[in-house]
Amino acid sequence: MTFRIGANNYGKQRVRLLRVSRSGEQNHVKELTLGIRFEGDFEMAHTVGDNSKILPTDTMKNTVYALARKSPVASVEDFSLLLIEHFLKGNRHTTRVSVEAKEDLWTRILVGRKEHPAAFVRSGGERRTALLDATREKTVIRSGLENLTLMKTTQSAFDGFIRDPYTTLKESRDRILATSVRADWLFGSGAIDFDAVWEGVRDTIMEVFAEHVSESVQHTLFVIGDAVLGRFDQIREIQLSLPNKHYNLVNLEPFGLDNPGEVFLPTDEPHGLIEATVQRD
Amino acid sequence: MTFRIGANNYGKQRVRLLRVSRSGEQNHVKELTLGIRFEGDFEMAHTVGDNSKILPTDTMKNTVYALARKSPVASVEDFSLLLIEHFLKGNRHTTRVSVEAKEDLWTRILVGRKEHPAAFVRSGGERRTALLDATREKTVIRSGLENLTLMKTTQSAFDGFIRDPYTTLKESRDRILATSVRADWLFGSGAIDFDAVWEGVRDTIMEVFAEHVSESVQHTLFVIGDAVLGRFDQIREIQLSLPNKHYNLVNLEPFGLDNPGEVFLPTDEPHGLIEATVQRD
Amino acid sequence: MTFRIGANNYGKQRVRLLRVSRSGEQNHVKELTLGIRFEGDFEMAHTVGDNSKILPTDTMKNTVYALARKSPVASVEDFSLLLIEHFLKGNRHTTRVSVEAKEDLWTRILVGRKEHPAAFVRSGGERRTALLDATREKTVIRSGLENLTLMKTTQSAFDGFIRDPYTTLKESRDRILATSVRADWLFGSGAIDFDAVWEGVRDTIMEVFAEHVSESVQHTLFVIGDAVLGRFDQIREIQLSLPNKHYNLVNLEPFGLDNPGEVFLPTDEPHGLIEATVQRD
Amino acid sequence: MTFRIGANNYGKQRVRLLRVSRSGEQNHVKELTLGIRFEGDFEMAHTVGDNSKILPTDTMKNTVYALARKSPVASVEDFSLLLIEHFLKGNRHTTRVSVEAKEDLWTRILVGRKEHPAAFVRSGGERRTALLDATREKTVIRSGLENLTLMKTTQSAFDGFIRDPYTTLKESRDRILATSVRADWLFGSGAIDFDAVWEGVRDTIMEVFAEHVSESVQHTLFVIGDAVLGRFDQIREIQLSLPNKHYNLVNLEPFGLDNPGEVFLPTDEPHGLIEATVQRD
Repeated sequence: MTFRIGANNYGKQRVRLLRVSRSGEQNHVKELTLGIRFEGDFEMAHTVGDNSKILPTDTMKNTVYALARKSPVASVEDFSLLLIEHFLKGNRHTTRVSVEAKEDLWTRILVGRKEHPAAFVRSGGERRTALLDATREKTVIRSGLENLTLMKTTQSAFDGFIRDPYTTLKESRDRILATSVRADWLFGSGAIDFDAVWEGVRDTIMEVFAEHVSESVQHTLFVIGDAVLGRFDQIREIQLSLPNKHYNLVNLEPFGLDNPGEVFLPTDEPHGLIEATVQRD
Repeated sequence: MTFRIGANNYGKQRVRLLRVSRSGEQNHVKELTLGIRFEGDFEMAHTVGDNSKILPTDTMKNTVYALARKSPVASVEDFSLLLIEHFLKGNRHTTRVSVEAKEDLWTRILVGRKEHPAAFVRSGGERRTALLDATREKTVIRSGLENLTLMKTTQSAFDGFIRDPYTTLKESRDRILATSVRADWLFGSGAIDFDAVWEGVRDTIMEVFAEHVSESVQHTLFVIGDAVLGRFDQIREIQLSLPNKHYNLVNLEPFGLDNPGEVFLPTDEPHGLIEATVQRD
Repeated sequence: MTFRIGANNYGKQRVRLLRVSRSGEQNHVKELTLGIRFEGDFEMAHTVGDNSKILPTDTMKNTVYALARKSPVASVEDFSLLLIEHFLKGNRHTTRVSVEAKEDLWTRILVGRKEHPAAFVRSGGERRTALLDATREKTVIRSGLENLTLMKTTQSAFDGFIRDPYTTLKESRDRILATSVRADWLFGSGAIDFDAVWEGVRDTIMEVFAEHVSESVQHTLFVIGDAVLGRFDQIREIQLSLPNKHYNLVNLEPFGLDNPGEVFLPTDEPHGLIEATVQRD
Repeated sequence: MTFRIGANNYGKQRVRLLRVSRSGEQNHVKELTLGIRFEGDFEMAHTVGDNSKILPTDTMKNTVYALARKSPVASVEDFSLLLIEHFLKGNRHTTRVSVEAKEDLWTRILVGRKEHPAAFVRSGGERRTALLDATREKTVIRSGLENLTLMKTTQSAFDGFIRDPYTTLKESRDRILATSVRADWLFGSGAIDFDAVWEGVRDTIMEVFAEHVSESVQHTLFVIGDAVLGRFDQIREIQLSLPNKHYNLVNLEPFGLDNPGEVFLPTDEPHGLIEATVQRD
């Protein structure tokens, strides 16, 4: 045949890890799900079934556990950097390694009003995320979050839009706005306190969402991105993906009832989806 | 025909509702997913296709929205009672109505350290639940929660168990214990503050889980149930369903490493499942 | 405390197994997910943390694999019976064992028009199911299926139902009927060819669904159950759970278009749910 | 602030449609889930909340239903082209429109051995997919499939790979190979019979998977891509994403049993993932 292999990668997905750090009675936990991808000179594996340049994905998985033993796994970004360094060093046929991480968050159980040293409750459906992508020349670090679900019941409008023959949507100066934020931000160079930035961006997203008067999801997205860049110099750009989770006002007229913004139908589908990057100039 | 219809029921599932209550600037939200079931004299609908005793499930859904407009939906239990009363009153062929409810929980966004009056964040993957089951004679009320995910990294053991030829599990005085609590509790008669009890039971479950020394999931289950009954006189029994979400210690010996309770593999399957009711005598 | 343990059980869920049988070039595969539950004298495990009557759920899992090696796993029911017999024999404190099984179905890949001896494609989202529940006196066997998704675009009606003030549904002599069948049937005594019955019941459900004129989901349910009992003497009763997966006719009038039963909105929620048992007298 | 909006798009996701075509007694059904995205001059919507260039996503949804009424929805690709043409024509501020479609497949129920004209069963968890991406200059058409789950129990090997200190995987000349194929292929110019190509590619994937001797998932991927390009001149490249769904041989030695390739543990995580494009030169 005369066909050729184009862009390709391989790796291990859904590698799960719980790392417990024990300092006296005080335990810390970090639960991660990792995806690892290699790009490189793997043409012969595809075209003639020669595996001599292939590190098994099973080995990638083992490496996660071995390195987790040797490292405190302080932040997901630090641990991902460690993995990348290890893989690039040991695999000369590999030109690019990326690690995608999702962290399930745990908070300490309160007993009385005191935090327990070794008992935890899962905090939210929300996950902290990271995506590190490295060649031998350069490492790109993105931190993020997903599934941060927000709603506001005032100060959200949508009007002044295009009307065509298929438009039936009514203009509204007062609708419910709900979304499930997915965000990731790209760091510039320089030392970064990943945990502090993550907490700060998360707080910023929630505060801006709560406080601003929204003219559309696009508008909300930009105001959030603008505030994040304004507060965090280390961030070069932020990508935001905001589904518009529609809560539709139920028509109660057939039952002789009005509905002054009190009874809504939550829906998962269809939903709007607004995506954009906000950048420094 | 010579065959007959046995036990049967019908109804509407996954009826979703957001109820917003507005008192000045302060808004309250309650998001519910309801399932409604009718039992009664519906034999002819099955055997000869006669729908004259059938209230359409579409009407059940409409009723949820109309009654939500007329009621503040203060608690999921109160609203379910209202629905049940309405349905039993209007449908004489119906002998039993049950309402199963799941509540997605929202908490106020903090701006600075102040709760915002009209902006909310989804709190956890956890849901508050209720199951009300009523005939014309009697109404049984169960409140509950599901998906309250807990972990402790000390004070959990499992040993002294039966060993047979297929047993390979090692005894342990120090393992990770993790579970995702599903609980529901049956109320006796008398007035109940459903919200206060729910908060109290939830706190009790978490505190007991954190504080006690576990000999097994069965043991933890009983200690939790025992504490709940001890604190809440209104509760006659509590059902608990506790998956044993295994976090397996990774064997690092092949890599020349020890693993003193630091690196674990989280797993979803297979999992143990322990279920029991704890009751007053 | 004076509280006591009520009904309780424990076991292992989501035990997954692929059994390959090799006879010459012809391979057979069976993929199962099993749930095992024990009831018995487990009070001390709960109340005082004494595990001396507890067979670890890890051992239950190991037993599945060991017995799968010793048995051909001819049918899911036969293999479940083997497990039950083993567990009851070896665990005198256990009074009841149940096995719930779900089978992912594989069919042979056709190469040309010939079935390949050792290559398979997953057939459908549908699963074969079984539930065996045994005490030392008696074993109850139920076979079944779930997620058999069916639709008919003619010969389905729903009219003549109750109308109350919250009823807005229009009567229809021509609607789409769609459902995702969950069925399980209870066997009487006597030898049974589980595979032949399963195939036969599945064909019967589909044929009856296709051919009859439906007055409601209740009506369809009964006609299916009636036909199954009519064809299979070994079956004493059949339970059917039929969601009414609504396909709503889209109102195109705002766009100046009619819609003579051509454009529909498929929905997952809310949905009707009709459940009943059809029995021999 | 001095920050700017970068790449951005918006649209409607999870727009669901059932199109029934009725020709005499013979009915045809097509069930689609569509995602629509617009790119264009939407900066002002973001930065100042000016919606005057925004077509509401609700209108996108309405358009799907109106155009589905006017068109027979013969193939998902044809219908997507119709939508794109409509949207580009009517929205001069929009520079790019993409439509992503997923089709749930239905086959006719057999009654006796005859296909029923108006009753259908869902065929598999598999979905047909399409992704059309158009600017005013150019339209790129990709067809595909996802969730085509395959397994072979012979003629699959993996050996000769790199071994490093974290490698524990044993070499194998005889393992189970299982995957869930996601494929999409890019068409060149010229008229295309989308349905015929789709059927042909699907058959090719299954046949090649069944017949070839696999040295790795990479190898299998290339052999599949190579065969598809060899048979279909209209296809310029094919992207394949193949998870390695591990079926692990269970170690039965602790129970005094061998396991000659008969008892396996199916796993979902972790899993390998192999992705590549096969192209014409």
